[in-house]
Amino acid sequence: MSSQAPHPTLLIPGPIEFDDAVLQSMAHYAESHVAPGFVKTFGETLTLVRKLFQSTNPAAQPFVISGSGTLGWDVVASSLVEKGENALVLHTGYFADSFAACLTTYGANATQLKAPIGERPSFEDIEQALKEKTYKIITITHVDTSTGVLSDIKRIAEIVRRVSPNTLVVVDGVCSVGCEEIAFDEWDLDVVLTASQKAIGCPPGLSILMTSGRAIDVFKNRQTPPASYYSSIGNWLPIMQNYENLKPSYFATPPTQLVHALHTTLSQITSRPMAERFAVHTQASDRVKAAVAELGLKQLAAKPENQAHAMTAIWLPEGLAPPDVLPGLLKRGVIFAAGLHKEAATKYIRFGHMGVSVSDPARKDIDNAIAALKEALTEAKQAKGL
Amino acid sequence: MSSQAPHPTLLIPGPIEFDDAVLQSMAHYAESHVAPGFVKTFGETLTLVRKLFQSTNPAAQPFVISGSGTLGWDVVASSLVEKGENALVLHTGYFADSFAACLTTYGANATQLKAPIGERPSFEDIEQALKEKTYKIITITHVDTSTGVLSDIKRIAEIVRRVSPNTLVVVDGVCSVGCEEIAFDEWDLDVVLTASQKAIGCPPGLSILMTSGRAIDVFKNRQTPPASYYSSIGNWLPIMQNYENLKPSYFATPPTQLVHALHTTLSQITSRPMAERFAVHTQASDRVKAAVAELGLKQLAAKPENQAHAMTAIWLPEGLAPPDVLPGLLKRGVIFAAGLHKEAATKYIRFGHMGVSVSDPARKDIDNAIAALKEALTEAKQAKGL
Repeated sequence: MSSQAPHPTLLIPGPIEFDDAVLQSMAHYAESHVAPGFVKTFGETLTLVRKLFQSTNPAAQPFVISGSGTLGWDVVASSLVEKGENALVLHTGYFADSFAACLTTYGANATQLKAPIGERPSFEDIEQALKEKTYKIITITHVDTSTGVLSDIKRIAEIVRRVSPNTLVVVDGVCSVGCEEIAFDEWDLDVVLTASQKAIGCPPGLSILMTSGRAIDVFKNRQTPPASYYSSIGNWLPIMQNYENLKPSYFATPPTQLVHALHTTLSQITSRPMAERFAVHTQASDRVKAAVAELGLKQLAAKPENQAHAMTAIWLPEGLAPPDVLPGLLKRGVIFAAGLHKEAATKYIRFGHMGVSVSDPARKDIDNAIAALKEALTEAKQAKGL
Repeated sequence: MSSQAPHPTLLIPGPIEFDDAVLQSMAHYAESHVAPGFVKTFGETLTLVRKLFQSTNPAAQPFVISGSGTLGWDVVASSLVEKGENALVLHTGYFADSFAACLTTYGANATQLKAPIGERPSFEDIEQALKEKTYKIITITHVDTSTGVLSDIKRIAEIVRRVSPNTLVVVDGVCSVGCEEIAFDEWDLDVVLTASQKAIGCPPGLSILMTSGRAIDVFKNRQTPPASYYSSIGNWLPIMQNYENLKPSYFATPPTQLVHALHTTLSQITSRPMAERFAVHTQASDRVKAAVAELGLKQLAAKPENQAHAMTAIWLPEGLAPPDVLPGLLKRGVIFAAGLHKEAATKYIRFGHMGVSVSDPARKDIDNAIAALKEALTEAKQAKGL
């Protein structure tokens, strides 16, 4: 039995449903951010982030910073790229445009490699682009929340290492970390940035980054000073290293309550092999995708290899828009999200299937949502005379 | 009776003790950040921020952003100052050095007007400095958490308006908002930036800013693009305006749980006249300062007009350092902070007296702390043979 007040089930691509224990962590009594109790909690949390990324390389460095997922872009753009350097931005939806805007703000030359909605740039085009110019970083949205497109970051990292070995591989994993397979060390990634409120199952308010030794070296060897204060790796690095070594340290007051919640959820997640967690999410995703097909609906990501396991972006039947369907879902206790991609926002809905909604066998969230979707669609079509 | 687990009373200059209802708000079930329920909560919270600042001018604009208090410096430095422009930084402790470092990062020429530890720059020196050069902004730490020095922001704002009317008056109110008197409109301030975890009584993780119409105009009339993405007023302004008008809007996912907690604490705070809250803090501060004097101890801020009501920074007797005294306080259930000012950190301790510890008449936090301080000092002196 959940201790939470009755509420509709939140199945958007983040924030997601919270586990009771995670929520209860938020109600921890006040602590000094530099006292031994909290220092231990924060230090352990950083070590748990390593486990989340299946990373054992001591040169890799986790960061947990007070801020939204968006802040991770600023950390990358202001710390790892210098004015006038090139960034190759792989575009699979809304979030590449925003990351490019962030990079440009700090003076990078951002080149976007775009694909039509639901598609992703081909490996050949990526290789070609990397050969044409020297890129300081390449950015990849692992799962674009606006389209549900999954990128093959392992394969792209292989291409980068072969063609342009000094280019930093930067993954926007906001909607992937905690449910899509990531082997940080083994795949030789340089940055994976994420947020607390998606597959990690923590409330929003934490920007989380995993960085390679190579990325930290790039920061340390900058020719110009970092372009931000709050987002500078240099200001946070000693803090993270000290806390993980159980030494108090101060740059900015950490969000103590959220760190407790992150500690709780990461302890839960890493108590089982990550492979098992990825498999559970794949199974739930397969079930959703099969049900969507059975309803005669198509996904924005048409090709199976492009389809995220975190979420499903579903084209609505001709003549229906999100406001025709979402209230019918809500009436049945289920919350989906409307479309987000600028060019098609009124034509599709998004179903997030991450975290406790798929990993807790006691919950029937996914079955209920599939049933609700079926009923709400039928009702909406009838109302429109379709 | 508190629902919180037994714990030592946190009387550092932030984070502070939490009210039960505020903590319970953190355990709210998951919500979509763009659904009507949360939009209303966030919108109302922004309106409550106006009340907190006693502001009724519709041109003034509150911001509530996911991040530490430190982030507020970046918002100012990247949005309101352009490369090569001058900033006058009034120095009353540690935090002026950091704000100056932040301003410099974004290309401002930061000039610090320094005073000895425990003092503040004189009004004459401030006026003189403003006459010598054109400053885009002047920054004032309202209460410097490292020294307990209070600045007279009302008087300084008057000087600025008389001598250099276009200079933006920027107040670092991290350790003052919610307990020191601030009349945002009446005193003609341009920015007051603060954080959630001090006198506001909310857990850490929110950067809160109040800005004047003049400040917003300065942002809109920039000659160069904003120097940050996450900290740009331009990216947050439409979001804040939309939420306050109860329209969902997206730039970055807001920290839903913390916004609930802020809503709860601001509802409590603004349910009574702000003048009453300031008076309660002044009374508690007077009591602490009298007790400190009775113990034969001196404050870093020697002159009464320099002394904050939020906290007291206390010189230890010759021969004692914080590690000699803080454990004795902890043994008695009270947590104070060690010194922070680089030049004197080992010679003083800090006692925070903000929020429920002073405003809730059922609590005896201040009396208990004064008694504990007396005993811990006696014990420490005996142990050292002093």
